Amino acid sequence: MEIIESLQWRYATKKFDNTRTLPQEKIDILTKAFNLTATSYGLQPLKLVVLKDKEIQKDLTTHSWNQQQVADASHLLIFCIEKNVGEAYITKYFDNVKTIRNTPEEILKPFKEQLIDSFENKSADEISNWASKQAYLAMGNLLTVCATEKIDACPMEGFIPEKYDELLNLSQYGLTSVLVLPIGYRAPDDMFAGLKKVRRSINETVITL
Amino acid sequence: MEIIESLQWRYATKKFDNTRTLPQEKIDILTKAFNLTATSYGLQPLKLVVLKDKEIQKDLTTHSWNQQQVADASHLLIFCIEKNVGEAYITKYFDNVKTIRNTPEEILKPFKEQLIDSFENKSADEISNWASKQAYLAMGNLLTVCATEKIDACPMEGFIPEKYDELLNLSQYGLTSVLVLPIGYRAPDDMFAGLKKVRRSINETVITL
Repeated sequence: MEIIESLQWRYATKKFDNTRTLPQEKIDILTKAFNLTATSYGLQPLKLVVLKDKEIQKDLTTHSWNQQQVADASHLLIFCIEKNVGEAYITKYFDNVKTIRNTPEEILKPFKEQLIDSFENKSADEISNWASKQAYLAMGNLLTVCATEKIDACPMEGFIPEKYDELLNLSQYGLTSVLVLPIGYRAPDDMFAGLKKVRRSINETVITL
Repeated sequence: MEIIESLQWRYATKKFDNTRTLPQEKIDILTKAFNLTATSYGLQPLKLVVLKDKEIQKDLTTHSWNQQQVADASHLLIFCIEKNVGEAYITKYFDNVKTIRNTPEEILKPFKEQLIDSFENKSADEISNWASKQAYLAMGNLLTVCATEKIDACPMEGFIPEKYDELLNLSQYGLTSVLVLPIGYRAPDDMFAGLKKVRRSINETVITL
């Protein structure tokens, strides 16, 4: 039940201690965990921006409904999706499979062609929506990893992606931002840390058939 | 680094041992973890169906691109979204906040009204898309919890939601299915368990600014 205790310890941190910085080893755990996230078809249409720059964090706060966690967090993680998932991207993925697993081309070919075909038939919006969902899955993973590592965090949908993309120059990487996660240590006086969790009862949210 | 070892142990299980059943205590951990998932505004627009019925699992396999994991898994978890997130639903949420935290109505009122307003201005598609993303976040949480608990799992987008909804009579609960997670124990001869993980290098997926 250790994991449940960790999940109960976790809460959406409303106020970070802006005097404390996470050690690099914690950041390394989070980036490794991010890269190990399961993704649809294994395509990993995601990148993670790790930001530790109080000046930029302050600028980004303006584009995050003024949520001070963006400015005060030890680090800011920005979950981004790839804007160009097409034939070239998918081919690169299968090249990676070949290199890592030594799988012969003829084994991979049918699935590779089917996947390229399927993505060519999707609209840009469909692909962006698909990739965004993978970002949410990665967020779910990292929130739980944060909890096991006693890293405080506050998942955020409330920011202006266009402004983040512009300020961080994300288009140069072929990326657009979809989720933000300030991480660090809760401030001793964050009154939200002590509040009871609000959840529907398990009897209501779980149906056993 | 224990958590990283768990995430490395995890893989999308291709073949389950259909002779083994997860103990109830493991299921309890997963349902608790599900209910503790962070969700947008705390609204929890999700329910989890826990299915352990080989006959139904077999029927559902037909609607899951014949992926045998659906039939062979110890349990099948079906992540569902609420179809009716509107004024009544949101009011119930705030009633729950009042009950659990004893927060006075006047403190909650402005945010409650703003939220009801904002959802009234969303289309059904927008709400469904928003809720689905929360389901992916819950999936990300549960996959990591499975990994820490040494529960094998295989996250699936490849199934026909309409058929699942019909067979499980989900509309009676106001739900529709969005993700499926067979869980249990990997079969000793699942050749995928031994394959190297295919991931882009961390240098490629993580950008440090």
